[in-house]
Amino acid sequence: MTQIKFKKIIATASLLAVGVFNVAYAQEDLARYVDPLIGTAKMGHTYPGATVPFGSVQLSPDTDTIPYAVNGRYNPDVYKYCAGYKYDDKTIVGFSHTHFSGTGHSDLGDLLVMPTVGTLQLNPGTAANPDMGYRSRFSHEEEKATAGYYAVNLKDYNIKAELTASTRVGMHKYTFPKSTEAHIILDLKAGIYNYDGKNVWTFVRVENDSTITGYRQTSGWARTRKVYFAMSFSKAFKSYGQEKQKDQVYRGFWGRFDQNHNFPEMAGKDLRLYFDFDTEEGEAINVKMALSPVSTDGALNNMKTEIPGWDFESVKQKARDAWNQELNKITVETLKESDKVNLYTAMYHAFLGPTVYMDVDGKYMGLDRNIHQAEGFTNYTSFSLWDTYRALHPLFNVLQPQRNQDMIQSMLVHQEQSVHHMLPIWSHYANENWCMIGYHSVSVIADAIVKGNADFDQNAALDACVQTARTRYFDGIGDYIDMQYVPEDKSGASVSKTLEYAYDDWAIAQAAQKLGRQEIYDEFIERSTYYKNVYDAKIGFMRPKLSDGTFKKDFDALNTHGQGFIEGNSWNYSLYVPHDPASLIDMMGGKEKFSIHLDSLFTMHLPDKYFENTEDISREGIIGNYVHGNEPSHHVAYMYNWTNDAYKAQDKIRMILKDKYQTGNDGLSGNDDFGQMSAWYLFSSLGFYPVAPGSVDYALGSPAIEEASLHLDNGNTFTVEAKNQSDKNVYVRKVELNGVLLKKPFITHDQVMNGGKLTFYMSSKPNKNLYN
Amino acid sequence: MTQIKFKKIIATASLLAVGVFNVAYAQEDLARYVDPLIGTAKMGHTYPGATVPFGSVQLSPDTDTIPYAVNGRYNPDVYKYCAGYKYDDKTIVGFSHTHFSGTGHSDLGDLLVMPTVGTLQLNPGTAANPDMGYRSRFSHEEEKATAGYYAVNLKDYNIKAELTASTRVGMHKYTFPKSTEAHIILDLKAGIYNYDGKNVWTFVRVENDSTITGYRQTSGWARTRKVYFAMSFSKAFKSYGQEKQKDQVYRGFWGRFDQNHNFPEMAGKDLRLYFDFDTEEGEAINVKMALSPVSTDGALNNMKTEIPGWDFESVKQKARDAWNQELNKITVETLKESDKVNLYTAMYHAFLGPTVYMDVDGKYMGLDRNIHQAEGFTNYTSFSLWDTYRALHPLFNVLQPQRNQDMIQSMLVHQEQSVHHMLPIWSHYANENWCMIGYHSVSVIADAIVKGNADFDQNAALDACVQTARTRYFDGIGDYIDMQYVPEDKSGASVSKTLEYAYDDWAIAQAAQKLGRQEIYDEFIERSTYYKNVYDAKIGFMRPKLSDGTFKKDFDALNTHGQGFIEGNSWNYSLYVPHDPASLIDMMGGKEKFSIHLDSLFTMHLPDKYFENTEDISREGIIGNYVHGNEPSHHVAYMYNWTNDAYKAQDKIRMILKDKYQTGNDGLSGNDDFGQMSAWYLFSSLGFYPVAPGSVDYALGSPAIEEASLHLDNGNTFTVEAKNQSDKNVYVRKVELNGVLLKKPFITHDQVMNGGKLTFYMSSKPNKNLYN
Repeated sequence: MTQIKFKKIIATASLLAVGVFNVAYAQEDLARYVDPLIGTAKMGHTYPGATVPFGSVQLSPDTDTIPYAVNGRYNPDVYKYCAGYKYDDKTIVGFSHTHFSGTGHSDLGDLLVMPTVGTLQLNPGTAANPDMGYRSRFSHEEEKATAGYYAVNLKDYNIKAELTASTRVGMHKYTFPKSTEAHIILDLKAGIYNYDGKNVWTFVRVENDSTITGYRQTSGWARTRKVYFAMSFSKAFKSYGQEKQKDQVYRGFWGRFDQNHNFPEMAGKDLRLYFDFDTEEGEAINVKMALSPVSTDGALNNMKTEIPGWDFESVKQKARDAWNQELNKITVETLKESDKVNLYTAMYHAFLGPTVYMDVDGKYMGLDRNIHQAEGFTNYTSFSLWDTYRALHPLFNVLQPQRNQDMIQSMLVHQEQSVHHMLPIWSHYANENWCMIGYHSVSVIADAIVKGNADFDQNAALDACVQTARTRYFDGIGDYIDMQYVPEDKSGASVSKTLEYAYDDWAIAQAAQKLGRQEIYDEFIERSTYYKNVYDAKIGFMRPKLSDGTFKKDFDALNTHGQGFIEGNSWNYSLYVPHDPASLIDMMGGKEKFSIHLDSLFTMHLPDKYFENTEDISREGIIGNYVHGNEPSHHVAYMYNWTNDAYKAQDKIRMILKDKYQTGNDGLSGNDDFGQMSAWYLFSSLGFYPVAPGSVDYALGSPAIEEASLHLDNGNTFTVEAKNQSDKNVYVRKVELNGVLLKKPFITHDQVMNGGKLTFYMSSKPNKNLYN
Repeated sequence: MTQIKFKKIIATASLLAVGVFNVAYAQEDLARYVDPLIGTAKMGHTYPGATVPFGSVQLSPDTDTIPYAVNGRYNPDVYKYCAGYKYDDKTIVGFSHTHFSGTGHSDLGDLLVMPTVGTLQLNPGTAANPDMGYRSRFSHEEEKATAGYYAVNLKDYNIKAELTASTRVGMHKYTFPKSTEAHIILDLKAGIYNYDGKNVWTFVRVENDSTITGYRQTSGWARTRKVYFAMSFSKAFKSYGQEKQKDQVYRGFWGRFDQNHNFPEMAGKDLRLYFDFDTEEGEAINVKMALSPVSTDGALNNMKTEIPGWDFESVKQKARDAWNQELNKITVETLKESDKVNLYTAMYHAFLGPTVYMDVDGKYMGLDRNIHQAEGFTNYTSFSLWDTYRALHPLFNVLQPQRNQDMIQSMLVHQEQSVHHMLPIWSHYANENWCMIGYHSVSVIADAIVKGNADFDQNAALDACVQTARTRYFDGIGDYIDMQYVPEDKSGASVSKTLEYAYDDWAIAQAAQKLGRQEIYDEFIERSTYYKNVYDAKIGFMRPKLSDGTFKKDFDALNTHGQGFIEGNSWNYSLYVPHDPASLIDMMGGKEKFSIHLDSLFTMHLPDKYFENTEDISREGIIGNYVHGNEPSHHVAYMYNWTNDAYKAQDKIRMILKDKYQTGNDGLSGNDDFGQMSAWYLFSSLGFYPVAPGSVDYALGSPAIEEASLHLDNGNTFTVEAKNQSDKNVYVRKVELNGVLLKKPFITHDQVMNGGKLTFYMSSKPNKNLYN
């Protein structure tokens, strides 16, 4: 009881202090369970550095600067460096300020800072030859990564580097040896998914002996991206300079000035700067780097507002407090301590993004390259929507309702400012990068409307969804509307598109129904059935159809490549009708046959050749032919709930939880995809999952905790209890909601949000009649 | 009397309507004397297109797109294209919106628009092969250039092109033949002083079927320059597209969209766009192009505010009215109609720049790349100060007092926003391009302070001057302060620098004296004598001195190259002590010797080899060894006034006026230098000249008019009359100011501004005792 009351205080504070984490109160230090190194090996694509929840700054070590392309050709090694850091690497190049978490393509890595001593070197060197550049060797024994704080010893220089952050400011603390040749390097050329020519322009002003400002402008995944910054040093530098820029044809300086040393204005495509210091043994020099999407003035103001002073420990503590405030939204009892590590690290990863994208005064850069003022909401960016619409945004509707509304507001201004008048597909830093398929913003919006977490203009939001879904020139939509499927000969990955459009259209229909917009409901509920048009009943799989109405010949349902799908094969993708599993099951031969079909998916062997060139799918993420390491099948285990064999969902889910989410740097089985993988873990550990966002229903699975309480912003607490829980007792004997037996394997969003208790009675044997 | 009253109305209107030219009143159509083609042949570097006084938009035909460099090497041909238009050329590439007038280096040429019919071609073609590109042949018979309006027939397409402008918006009227293949091209790659890689980024949004927005970002003379625009068509285009961009390594589109046709968002380094129309015979399509230094929103607002509709004739008439308002500030009687053409064209050229650099709402881009609000002044850019401090800004103190104050305010915010905390040297578009030497902003500021045209914080302005003059790392100033001259072995063109710094320092001292800042006066009046330290009494010339105190050996006083001077030889530059001619004359051997020395300058022969590689000096601009076509000697003819032979000034001045300023496209003898050459003409034609800005004195010469009246903004009229004027009567028999005989060849600024009458009595014979 005291705990419930206590959580109400947090909830209220959270509502009042949207995006500002300065409410001091007693809470459990759950941050101790967060291990940011989980997912940094293999293909998790997470980063280990310092950040606060949804922070604009992700200050993290980069262990190499692999180019995206060499001589104009894609370099496959770059994929390992989506987050800048690869656990197996032996050197750290430096600490940059922006990172995506878990993405399958990348960008960012802005404003790399590196302290060195000795002879100045302004190139990063190579992993093979670290001594040829400014990078340093390091070891994991001398490394510490926690929520909001990262530390490492840079062996080559005997410098201890520590990092922390506020929302918009990264703070570095470098403890130097005694030296008359101490340097801090700022490399504006370095970046993630870099290549020669990615930098469009870089610009720096040395405002005084300890403050600089500038920007980095790039053209990469985001085609037109600009990051402004202000950087302050706790100690005045004694001198500074830049690496000589490549000869530019005309500059106007005429050689009259030495631009390379102590000249306070620098510009060019690839600035690399150094700042020199004398240091005493053990002397710490702190650095603050504030970012802004708007201007250097904005960056200076962000710095002044968020971290006015130089107290590293205080900033570090505030960052940890901010994490604890978020992490305390779930309190949990589990059988194993390691499950707490997995759970709180999953929460940590889930709360890394989308990230705040506006100055403290509410100004932000829009897609139209104009500066806008966020009125009454916090603007967010980095929407990896093909991933995150599935479970992450639904999770936010439970645990981050205000932020989710702000994210939707951010999508709506994106739509207003987009010259396409489309909601975001995959957007970051005021750019649409068009990555992946579908228009899943509509799912996020519909889910919020249907669940009543929608303090925005819902009709305008629905209009934005409709306008997006009617954009004929976008990725086969014109044909989809006219022919009721996307023809493979007109637009590749046509089956994936048809299936995902159909789901998205259903989501639009749900929102329209809630808002009483009958015509829109009729149009889109009709469109939501178009998945049927790419089902080949003869073979029992979804299959690409051509413009002439015939199915593609030479079809292989196992192959990920060239079969009309994207990042998945037909075995997995044919199950992608999350909004109407019952009809799909009917179409595929009924419940019994479908249940066996699912069994096959989880047990058959998928040879490597079928996916080995698909970056987002790896052996680690696969069970049989079921691909958990990538998103399209995330709802599949729960589909047993629509058969008479719900118990099969239970053991599959527990198997996935156990196999695919582990502690340790190699614990993640695939890209975390900006929190989607983690959101799956959280929901599934708690025993329920949003199979079709846009529906108020959650499908029940098999909780992996003993007891967990969700401390909701509305002051309610929803507790899940799993009686008789063990590693073997993965089957549900019965479930009660507030003491009332559940006859169907579903609960609703309201039932969660109203608070109460969901009690699972666990068993080592399946209860085959549980929901039948 | 009625005329005086009438002029008062203009003056008041002008004071009230700073920068806004919408006051309707009866005035003489003096614009009919303006010939914008003067200076477009040879090296005048003027442009013939449409602009309003001090307008942000200079919409003018470009006759070629010569690259600044080919394979990284300077291309000398580019110098002919500083203003984009070369009279002798046979083709027009298109009409771009920004041009410098008369400069000796260049930039701009932004947003080139060209109408065509027939098969679409998106490259400009070549002069030799115009049919291979979108350019068109034209002839001067079918061309018309007037103040605020330009028209030409594009022969290859039978399109009549007409141009006019408001301050921030260019307006085009294209009258097409009947065609189903009419195009309007927008080339964002084209530019003046272009080269591969000069474009940093270009960005375009097609907002609707008749409006686009975007920007062009370049790195040229201005290292970090961005021009935002909004462009509207009077008729919806039926389709549009872009030239395929060079392959970029990563774009995110994955080939899923056709970005090249009817895709409303385009970005890349070198966008070239087309818009397609069907046209009837004689159908006119109008285009409006609004510029902004701030944003596309700013550009749209500028368009909406300045030219909301589509009435080309009305905009054209307003532009002409704006010119007439300015031109009517001088009314004149001359012996020859052609002198009126020269005089009003000189006024036109003098009033082309500096140009307004802010949106209608007062927002502008600062040197710090932040957006600022101009509070209480109009922000200007394009300060070619090494040229314009001499006579143009002094002219503004007489005829454009409010604008000159605003220009100084613009210099002061430049200084505030400059990371160097220096006043502008040569600045344009929120960039310091560092062109040429000295820090002549201080002259402009001191001149305004000393003359009492200084409604700004004069002490802060003086502080800015002092700070600038103490910037040790700038171009030899540290050595200049320490050694009292710039040593040639440390900083080239050391004599020119020493001389110009000394003059500038004197100007600072004058302002300090006026403001009672004794310490500053003492410091800078002392520095103003440093010119003496580079005078070699043994040879009677200024001569470069080395760090060890010895003069450079192997010295040639005639040679422009490598002798310690810039754009001038020692013969000319040794006379550059405008602030203390008397001391210079003493130093050079006294009045008689000096007078003969000057005679030699005007009569000796300067062989080509001494200047043939100096772009800013050409045979046309030379009389003997006196170089009028470039600035350093502009005061020299007036130096006779400090000898006993003032009459020699009179015939020299009349000779220069007659020889070096003529009607016709080849009428200018050198770069007009943003109005400096024209300002010399105007002052000298009126019979007085500001030898040393920062002094209130004007030196009297020999007026070339019969009668001229200056209608001043303060309501006063100052009239110059030349009795018995003729081509032969170039000598002054006597001069009276308001009927009182002048005993010295000087009048003061107050005497001009108070109004009154200066009467010259002319004669064919010199009066050798006139002022003695």
